[in-house]
Amino acid sequence: MSIENLSSHKSFDGWHKQYRHHAGTLNCPMRFAIYLPPQTAQGEKVPVLYWLSGLTCTDENFMQKAGAHRIAAELGIAIVAPDTSPRGKAVADDEGYDLGQGAGFYVNATQAPWNRHYHMYDYVLQELPQLIEASFPVSDKRAIAGHSMGGHGALVLALRNPERYTSVSAFSPIANPVDCPWGQKAFSAYLGEDTSKWKDYDASLLMRSATAKVPARVDIGEADEFLHEQLKPQALEAAAEASGYPLQLNRHPGYDHSYYFIASFIEQQLRFHALYLEQ
Amino acid sequence: MSIENLSSHKSFDGWHKQYRHHAGTLNCPMRFAIYLPPQTAQGEKVPVLYWLSGLTCTDENFMQKAGAHRIAAELGIAIVAPDTSPRGKAVADDEGYDLGQGAGFYVNATQAPWNRHYHMYDYVLQELPQLIEASFPVSDKRAIAGHSMGGHGALVLALRNPERYTSVSAFSPIANPVDCPWGQKAFSAYLGEDTSKWKDYDASLLMRSATAKVPARVDIGEADEFLHEQLKPQALEAAAEASGYPLQLNRHPGYDHSYYFIASFIEQQLRFHALYLEQ
Repeated sequence: MSIENLSSHKSFDGWHKQYRHHAGTLNCPMRFAIYLPPQTAQGEKVPVLYWLSGLTCTDENFMQKAGAHRIAAELGIAIVAPDTSPRGKAVADDEGYDLGQGAGFYVNATQAPWNRHYHMYDYVLQELPQLIEASFPVSDKRAIAGHSMGGHGALVLALRNPERYTSVSAFSPIANPVDCPWGQKAFSAYLGEDTSKWKDYDASLLMRSATAKVPARVDIGEADEFLHEQLKPQALEAAAEASGYPLQLNRHPGYDHSYYFIASFIEQQLRFHALYLEQ
Repeated sequence: MSIENLSSHKSFDGWHKQYRHHAGTLNCPMRFAIYLPPQTAQGEKVPVLYWLSGLTCTDENFMQKAGAHRIAAELGIAIVAPDTSPRGKAVADDEGYDLGQGAGFYVNATQAPWNRHYHMYDYVLQELPQLIEASFPVSDKRAIAGHSMGGHGALVLALRNPERYTSVSAFSPIANPVDCPWGQKAFSAYLGEDTSKWKDYDASLLMRSATAKVPARVDIGEADEFLHEQLKPQALEAAAEASGYPLQLNRHPGYDHSYYFIASFIEQQLRFHALYLEQ
């Protein structure tokens, strides 16, 4: 488990760093970013929030645009941002922005050619935390969050692995991917045409039958250009109602799908996670 | 003075917007960004901070990466970010990142081919504020700030036009451009080889003889990779000492030239400007 440091920037008295490592799960080299809050400089082991980004993003978008370091530094939380798919010339790809590299959808692909590298579910769930916890001054307390495709990923990972995460949050998640164009295109390619194989990757279907319950917060912009066709938060809301799930879903008038929306409410999401990470 | 709206994003209860207009001073179409804090929605006229970006930047870098909207929203300050040079196929350019498009250095070029478009000094001083004050709910109270090449621009504009600005600040400014490679290359091209023509664009030389004194704050990262060869804050410090200039120069151990540094201290700079803008 060797990792190579690619960059270091002091930020809010802590450090933003990028690393490259060979990801066995994905069968390729991967880059990730970590924000280490100032508390780690005194040897303190801090909890970790995993952030999953959306379509076309890398490890950089959230770290540069969300304004999260300020609050993570105050709260003493590390943030880890993986890339959004396996990468490289040897890795299968597609011309669309919503399939292939930059669009891993946090699933384990079963269909060729995707199944050779596209195992982002296992990577985020197992390999990455194992590497992080072995390499940095962090505890094994984990929260998970994400945006859009990454909001879908965060919800699915937390719903299927409640023992691994203290809390989950999402901005503008693809909340019911089996029933929207982005999800149907990706799941057909990665998981095949048998739609019964899709349900383990659909937050609304999972939440409807959830028994162990990780506290969840979702923020939606009401002016989001993808709200009605792709995101479908009402399906998640109905699922939470059906199973009595502790979901806090906030709708924000005027906000869209951009990082300006994320930046406006990331403080609230981080303070939500801190409630559980610091217990 | 017609302007075309290109984008709108709600951010911290205010609005980030991009516009295009024909800049007479620059003889080409120009894009700029404005952050309008929530107070403007109630018809309040707010003061304006002009932000000048560094080499290779556009109107977007600061707006996306600095985390400034949060504090501007709280303080009730609009922020305007122009591009860093004239742009377009008809505009002279250079292969280097430090000359031509993306590198206007906030001067009025006197040398061909640059003198046809490169009048960023006049654009930022006159044309842009005139357009902003005619088009948006803002007052004529102005502050100015910038990073690197833009820090140089902000200091020069404030030192030469103290009646136009209530306060000035800079991150990592090119503080003595007549005496560093970036400045010498740009000034030779834009202003010619006669170095006596350069002194009106050198913050350290101007501060040494300043009589009217706009309060100034400068933040420097001690791990800045350009500190010793290009930035030379000690020249500015010596000039302030010689003329009794009200310069607050802060050195921050471990911080570099990146936006992570700017994000870490932009709140302090904005609160500094608010002291004077709100008088």
